Amino acid sequence: MRGSGTRRGRRRGGAAAPVRSVDYCNLRNPFPPIAVFTDDRIEAMHLTALQVLEELGIKVLLPEARDLLVKAGAKLADDDMVHIGRDIVQAALASAPRSFRMHGAVPDRDITVELGSLIFQPGAGAPHVTDRQRGRRPGKLDDFRELVQLTQGFDALQMVPPLVEPQDIPIHLRHYAMTEVALTQSDKVIFAYARGTPQAMECFEMIRDFRGLSDDEFRARPQLYTIVNTNSPRQIDVPMAQGLIDFAHYGQPIIVTPFTLMGAMAPITVAGALTLSHAEALAAITLAQLARPGAPVTYGTFTSNVDMKSGAPAFGTPEQVKASLGAGQLARLIGLPWRCAAGSAANVADAQAAHETEISGWGAVLAGATVVIHAAGWLEGGLTVGYEKLITDMDMVNTFAELCTAAAADDDAIGLDALREVQPGGHFFGAQHTMDRYQTEFWEPLSWDWSNYGTWQNAGANDAQERATAIWQERLAAFTPPNHSADRIGDLQDFIAYRTAAGGAAPVS
Amino acid sequence: MRGSGTRRGRRRGGAAAPVRSVDYCNLRNPFPPIAVFTDDRIEAMHLTALQVLEELGIKVLLPEARDLLVKAGAKLADDDMVHIGRDIVQAALASAPRSFRMHGAVPDRDITVELGSLIFQPGAGAPHVTDRQRGRRPGKLDDFRELVQLTQGFDALQMVPPLVEPQDIPIHLRHYAMTEVALTQSDKVIFAYARGTPQAMECFEMIRDFRGLSDDEFRARPQLYTIVNTNSPRQIDVPMAQGLIDFAHYGQPIIVTPFTLMGAMAPITVAGALTLSHAEALAAITLAQLARPGAPVTYGTFTSNVDMKSGAPAFGTPEQVKASLGAGQLARLIGLPWRCAAGSAANVADAQAAHETEISGWGAVLAGATVVIHAAGWLEGGLTVGYEKLITDMDMVNTFAELCTAAAADDDAIGLDALREVQPGGHFFGAQHTMDRYQTEFWEPLSWDWSNYGTWQNAGANDAQERATAIWQERLAAFTPPNHSADRIGDLQDFIAYRTAAGGAAPVS
Repeated sequence: MRGSGTRRGRRRGGAAAPVRSVDYCNLRNPFPPIAVFTDDRIEAMHLTALQVLEELGIKVLLPEARDLLVKAGAKLADDDMVHIGRDIVQAALASAPRSFRMHGAVPDRDITVELGSLIFQPGAGAPHVTDRQRGRRPGKLDDFRELVQLTQGFDALQMVPPLVEPQDIPIHLRHYAMTEVALTQSDKVIFAYARGTPQAMECFEMIRDFRGLSDDEFRARPQLYTIVNTNSPRQIDVPMAQGLIDFAHYGQPIIVTPFTLMGAMAPITVAGALTLSHAEALAAITLAQLARPGAPVTYGTFTSNVDMKSGAPAFGTPEQVKASLGAGQLARLIGLPWRCAAGSAANVADAQAAHETEISGWGAVLAGATVVIHAAGWLEGGLTVGYEKLITDMDMVNTFAELCTAAAADDDAIGLDALREVQPGGHFFGAQHTMDRYQTEFWEPLSWDWSNYGTWQNAGANDAQERATAIWQERLAAFTPPNHSADRIGDLQDFIAYRTAAGGAAPVS
Repeated sequence: MRGSGTRRGRRRGGAAAPVRSVDYCNLRNPFPPIAVFTDDRIEAMHLTALQVLEELGIKVLLPEARDLLVKAGAKLADDDMVHIGRDIVQAALASAPRSFRMHGAVPDRDITVELGSLIFQPGAGAPHVTDRQRGRRPGKLDDFRELVQLTQGFDALQMVPPLVEPQDIPIHLRHYAMTEVALTQSDKVIFAYARGTPQAMECFEMIRDFRGLSDDEFRARPQLYTIVNTNSPRQIDVPMAQGLIDFAHYGQPIIVTPFTLMGAMAPITVAGALTLSHAEALAAITLAQLARPGAPVTYGTFTSNVDMKSGAPAFGTPEQVKASLGAGQLARLIGLPWRCAAGSAANVADAQAAHETEISGWGAVLAGATVVIHAAGWLEGGLTVGYEKLITDMDMVNTFAELCTAAAADDDAIGLDALREVQPGGHFFGAQHTMDRYQTEFWEPLSWDWSNYGTWQNAGANDAQERATAIWQERLAAFTPPNHSADRIGDLQDFIAYRTAAGGAAPVS
């Protein structure tokens, strides 16, 4: 196992010390999923969503997508509105796989995407980055590279998302740069944007060839994923629809995520927002399944509320927790793996930011989410990824990972002999029961300081942010990329140089 | 309903605006309690704990307590060790009430203590206080008064604990000062220390008379509680044993709380530490039931781990969460209400502090705790209560309170009409469904700022701590004590003056 789940090195003298070894790469959610609505009301939301698609329809801006839906029996009305009958949706839900495997560059990085898996991602898609050293700034490729390197170092982050938007790279070349960084600085499941067929095809080609796969192997072994947001209410735009079709054709997973803020682009109630989100997700899943039956998709939602005084999005609210729990019920109703999110609306990595990320994080985990996006580093409702926040949030993510491990409860763990051994007034520090376990029993945090006030003051009285700065700096300084073939890296760079010279690939909108 | 659960005032022109009204005074835990051990291993821990009490015994330092146990059939061995047979423990568990009611000064403040209730307390028992204005300092009576006033203002804090130790008041007079403040500045269930019979009796008398109760009424209507910690491993000291007897005699609830740090005064394993804690809690509960069968007690534990490199206590760890979940299983096995805790080991109210309090808070809530102690304001593992942390943590506590409320899911909440009304590209801000609910649908935080980065910067770029300072200052400036009778206040002050002149009451140790 790699870094995060292990600790403690070698004793002096060369004898190996016991090592705490926990598999953070393959987590199973230890909690029973928690419901917030009764089953009959979840059924009512599902039926209402089917009714919405059938009676009210959804606007689909891509002709090819409309054609696919109409060919399956949907009715096309004015203004690109497509009315999708429930039988079409139900057929799509029947063909979507309940479980699929995604592949990293090495088998240790493969993950199973299904209900019951627990997969984390750091914050994604931010236009800005911030850290205590360099301040808040528009994201650049150097920032993206550093954030991918930090992500690579944490086993509990099993997917590498588009952490920050590298705005120093022109948009028609950005997919080259981001894919090169993700492929070379990481060995995990990676991401590509759905920004039109030309970019998607080039990303597929780069990843397929870098990982030494034939075209058939690539289609059969998902290597990357994309996120498809609908334009709530009830609209799927051109690049999103194209992404659904292209990724489905190539067997690469699509994480479907209507982004429905209660009171803004969705009804103000949790039940109403979830119903709209569900309808949109069903439409997107249907489109992917029509493009290729059996295409790997995850259900998803990103439903939170807005501040009704200002319209500002809020995250980590009780309403978001309820929406996450309800979305999990809807996901289980249709049986698909699903994506949820943590996150924060705070402008700085303060107590608000930590509380919001924790509350939404627990909401996602208790909701039985398969993939928890934005679990570390997300600030300003996604407008910024913070280096220090990424580090301090990892102590939360790693805590979730630890909670996935069982606590021993055999007779030896209960330890009657140890209880016999230590008399009133004594302590267990020296007990054999303790000596046998002290190097491996407890999780060790990354950024938390447990020293007492005096010791902490004498050491400089650094708060979590200050400690986190030192941690990301050390990790970046010590970073070594995974051991990829120099030939493959050379080929990738040649491909990018050739395509760049040929003009790159403009996004489609 | 009082402050915290309500918001928004009156419209201009005098017409009353809809008011969001949520009952934070009587919360029921909305989550199914989560298990971390199989039922048979919980049974094994229970049986081992019974075996520990029977075979290894527990040291009881108070002769009166030993006599009570021996009279019930326990065996006294050398060195004040008492061996308590399982039949004695089981009889005690049978006589302990599964549910009891505690009373504030007014019926709205009464609480039901039983499995399923969810009751919060702020941080308690700290020698120090800290705030951004006045720094970290030894606690004084003025600090205690302010913290009681802040506690009074939050409905979700249903009990008033000894937030900070007022060290400017001599210990033989401190119970007068603390009881006077708690009685006059609050109308909630309050606390008294178990520091020997003389102080306990005076506290009972002050509270009984201030609340206008006869002696019989006082004994039948619990008004206050105490916390009894054992001295782990396997020891009950003089004041704790006396507290168990005195509070039981007077029908005032005892929260039994072995404080067992894994690897230090308890075995290093979660299962071992819980088994020791369980044995000690059973012994204390047994003593209380022998003093008066039917005496109201809550089971409890405070089990976390230490840093094995330094011995420093840690809180908010995955091990603490597992211990809380396991303790909840043991509580449900014996059927008693129980006390758990949140908390943080951080030295400053930073991201670590927020994460630790959240993680341990979720652990306690998911464990099905009846009373969650130290849920707001606790720093340095209990050595300090922070004013700002109390405020920012209240957003967590209030979030838990909000999660106790159901989300509407009737057809009207699902809102098909609203979904019909808003077309693709539109928004729901103006929909009738939104207009009907926008003033009441969402929870509003205390210290969280949802404005965008530019607005936040223009407003001074205040972080959560800075905002929290303004909040506690405003709340204290606006504080009005509950409407207690001036006569009763006068009588209380006369009593205190008289007893002070007579020399006060020294604590027993």
